[in-house]
Amino acid sequence: MKNFKSRFFEDYKVNDEIHHSVPRTITDGDVSLYLATTGSRFALNYSKEFSRKLGFKKNPIDDILLFHMVFGRTVPDLSLNAIANLGYAGVKFKKPVFVGDTVTAKSKIVGLKENSNEKTGTVYVESVGTNQNGEVVLSYYRWLMMRKKEKGMISSFKNLVPKLPERVKSSEFHCPNVRIDHWLSEISGSSFYFNDYQIGEEIHHLDGQTIEDAEHQLATRLYQNNARVHFNQHVEKDGRFGKRIIYGGYIISLARAISCNGLANTFKVVAIHSGKHSSPTFSGDTIYAWSKVLEKEKINNKIGTMLIRTIASKNNSQMKFPDENKLDENIVLDLVYSVLIPIK
Amino acid sequence: MKNFKSRFFEDYKVNDEIHHSVPRTITDGDVSLYLATTGSRFALNYSKEFSRKLGFKKNPIDDILLFHMVFGRTVPDLSLNAIANLGYAGVKFKKPVFVGDTVTAKSKIVGLKENSNEKTGTVYVESVGTNQNGEVVLSYYRWLMMRKKEKGMISSFKNLVPKLPERVKSSEFHCPNVRIDHWLSEISGSSFYFNDYQIGEEIHHLDGQTIEDAEHQLATRLYQNNARVHFNQHVEKDGRFGKRIIYGGYIISLARAISCNGLANTFKVVAIHSGKHSSPTFSGDTIYAWSKVLEKEKINNKIGTMLIRTIASKNNSQMKFPDENKLDENIVLDLVYSVLIPIK
Amino acid sequence: MKNFKSRFFEDYKVNDEIHHSVPRTITDGDVSLYLATTGSRFALNYSKEFSRKLGFKKNPIDDILLFHMVFGRTVPDLSLNAIANLGYAGVKFKKPVFVGDTVTAKSKIVGLKENSNEKTGTVYVESVGTNQNGEVVLSYYRWLMMRKKEKGMISSFKNLVPKLPERVKSSEFHCPNVRIDHWLSEISGSSFYFNDYQIGEEIHHLDGQTIEDAEHQLATRLYQNNARVHFNQHVEKDGRFGKRIIYGGYIISLARAISCNGLANTFKVVAIHSGKHSSPTFSGDTIYAWSKVLEKEKINNKIGTMLIRTIASKNNSQMKFPDENKLDENIVLDLVYSVLIPIK
Repeated sequence: MKNFKSRFFEDYKVNDEIHHSVPRTITDGDVSLYLATTGSRFALNYSKEFSRKLGFKKNPIDDILLFHMVFGRTVPDLSLNAIANLGYAGVKFKKPVFVGDTVTAKSKIVGLKENSNEKTGTVYVESVGTNQNGEVVLSYYRWLMMRKKEKGMISSFKNLVPKLPERVKSSEFHCPNVRIDHWLSEISGSSFYFNDYQIGEEIHHLDGQTIEDAEHQLATRLYQNNARVHFNQHVEKDGRFGKRIIYGGYIISLARAISCNGLANTFKVVAIHSGKHSSPTFSGDTIYAWSKVLEKEKINNKIGTMLIRTIASKNNSQMKFPDENKLDENIVLDLVYSVLIPIK
Repeated sequence: MKNFKSRFFEDYKVNDEIHHSVPRTITDGDVSLYLATTGSRFALNYSKEFSRKLGFKKNPIDDILLFHMVFGRTVPDLSLNAIANLGYAGVKFKKPVFVGDTVTAKSKIVGLKENSNEKTGTVYVESVGTNQNGEVVLSYYRWLMMRKKEKGMISSFKNLVPKLPERVKSSEFHCPNVRIDHWLSEISGSSFYFNDYQIGEEIHHLDGQTIEDAEHQLATRLYQNNARVHFNQHVEKDGRFGKRIIYGGYIISLARAISCNGLANTFKVVAIHSGKHSSPTFSGDTIYAWSKVLEKEKINNKIGTMLIRTIASKNNSQMKFPDENKLDENIVLDLVYSVLIPIK
Repeated sequence: MKNFKSRFFEDYKVNDEIHHSVPRTITDGDVSLYLATTGSRFALNYSKEFSRKLGFKKNPIDDILLFHMVFGRTVPDLSLNAIANLGYAGVKFKKPVFVGDTVTAKSKIVGLKENSNEKTGTVYVESVGTNQNGEVVLSYYRWLMMRKKEKGMISSFKNLVPKLPERVKSSEFHCPNVRIDHWLSEISGSSFYFNDYQIGEEIHHLDGQTIEDAEHQLATRLYQNNARVHFNQHVEKDGRFGKRIIYGGYIISLARAISCNGLANTFKVVAIHSGKHSSPTFSGDTIYAWSKVLEKEKINNKIGTMLIRTIASKNNSQMKFPDENKLDENIVLDLVYSVLIPIK
């Protein structure tokens, strides 16, 4: 058969390398659709003039948009037979990406573990995105629950569970060489800088957003992420939930966009240390987000980094910041990541 | 708290100036999404070749798209605690804007009036949009009903109701320096020019458009207008109408796009003299539009201006042009504006 | 009246030429929206780098996107009073089109036939799209069932049913001058080339896509196709189906995009020999697609052409390839076309 059935658990081997197909040139159209589907207000990404004052050649694309573009490349090879996206770790944002750049992706299998149910296994993968000059723009670990072709334990199979980084070290952060003195509250919309945030401080980002099927489908197709659960109501009506499941990455985008209301000066995501989609979301759900500042560190005299935990919920605007190990059912995302912010 | 609660009535002072954040570089992506959400067919805005023949460096963006881009800048500072957008006056479109330009906005409080209900007041504001060279591209007056923080009349408060212009004078119109001899009916799709329209003439624009939640949300986010009533069904289900309210500006765009069928040679909006959102619109509503020619005047030998009143209705395709002071419930927009049209 | 009522059957004369209005400059925004509304993964159209390696100046736009852009020009003059789009023939894709090109269209009436019901007639038309240099980029025949203004047979009317081409000859195919040695499976995502396909082979393309009203409306407006049945629920609720009918061309786009899963190396559509929208589609329908290889021919030593029949269904994922003359009710598209594919 010529159609693409993707791989099952048995088809992966540790150290396998996969070159993902369909490189993608990122355009102004992608940036506008990212805005239209998220409502982001992070100033750096949408003003050519402001970005130039800071020393960029033009406005870099949103870090999470880049994540989706790399992730979208990997889907046919990794996600089509996945039952669940179990987590992310060690996500590092490297060289900034601009409109006109072309992104490609490759992955390496770094671990495999059979599950005792005999039907599934866990695949651990490291994915790397590069630009047209071969420079790394993104790398991350991800693990997925994958279907087996046949039920049963594989004879003489050796589980290999890799030791994934709990944290990306701040020495690994890519801090762009910017003239941060030109950063202005008037432009970003916030007067809160590195010194204004307290460790342990919690922020309710307020702006709930209700998602429609057309919106998440448009966004997910834009990234050429063609995992079937997001698009096919004819199949999903008889599935686990009776409806299409929203691409988890879309919720990351919404949470980051919503978090601008309270974190508007956090101009770059440098790392995502861990990410969990703790519950699925569907058309009609309203997404809210809260953040907590976990740690702070100076990168240099003018730029600091903050370790942030952002929680997104659905249909719940009144939330206590939850215990990390007791995630309420209507929590849909638990993200721990590091951002850059000017020191003033 | 770090999140942005915006201002209440008590937070505004007459003569206050507000520099709105998040300048916006306008791109080809924005223009395509404007097309995709409105269906406009005004030839000047979508053909680089035709625009160049007329003397533009490339196709200028639609005037109403510019309006949204400027308006979107002002929302966090002006609209978040507004209960209603009461009206517009003196809207002047100045320098044309092109893809690649970056738009910023500032506002000045020009009037304040307490309401006798002790809970709200009216804020009168003048907003100005500029391009990256500091040239004015748009200016307008707007007044809003704003919530107070605390109930009660403010002691020794002096109401100031400004005298807003009833009309932008035609001497203030920005008429671009174009080679209008190159305007062609074959290209615009209409053979009706300045001399073909009669004062008092009414036009039914015919093409009803049904709006989906995904559509108005995409458009409104594209403009980075983040007023909460447009996006949050979780809150709005318990609100005044039980559903998300469509951004009034989206209806202006639809009405202008629909009016192309009958006004295709009116190539530029130079002023909006008054605008009223007489009734809210919701997902599922179908918008129709009618226009009436109120006045005509020659700008020079080759270009004239017409004063137009355009009415938009929801779910009503059979309408008598209404008396200005008796707006039927299903009328959703009443707009009086001036356009340029070739004289042939 | 100034509004545009379009033409009725009586308004067309054989050999009439119509210059369609509103030329359209194609932008990166259009390409992104095409991706967002179809999810295409044909590598050539989305990577500037890959396209350049093959010898193009940059990535050409998707052939079916070009079709919609030309078709959209013709709608006000041809489709507004059409009851049904009866078919396409002789669709030839000529010069490739790139972002920045401006497309115009003209049509010639090549046949007219009255129907015995006295209310309608068939209009046969040849449409031609050209770029800003006057080069032909697309031409096709189409026939439509058109309303008459008045019931009755027209006195002394002579029916003229033109002989339309059953096939575009392969000698007429536009084969771009590419360095096809640079075509890579790693990039396209498929290792199946000309020699791997067998005549008679059937391919189930698997990836069903559910359509929302917002999605087809956005796509159709992007092409400035303003045929009313696609947009006006207020009228359509009382119409034949009680709902908005999806633009048939959107289904062609979906079928082609879905067919990438099995035909990823068919890098260009050179001709559509016949196309039938055998049943209408509506919001909520899930589209599936199947293809059959009907013929194969070498263009030169490195590029071959395949004649493909692609069938799309709604809400039916289990299908036997149907007899050409017994199309099941849930078949919505029957397309016979020719593609180019590398020989390796």
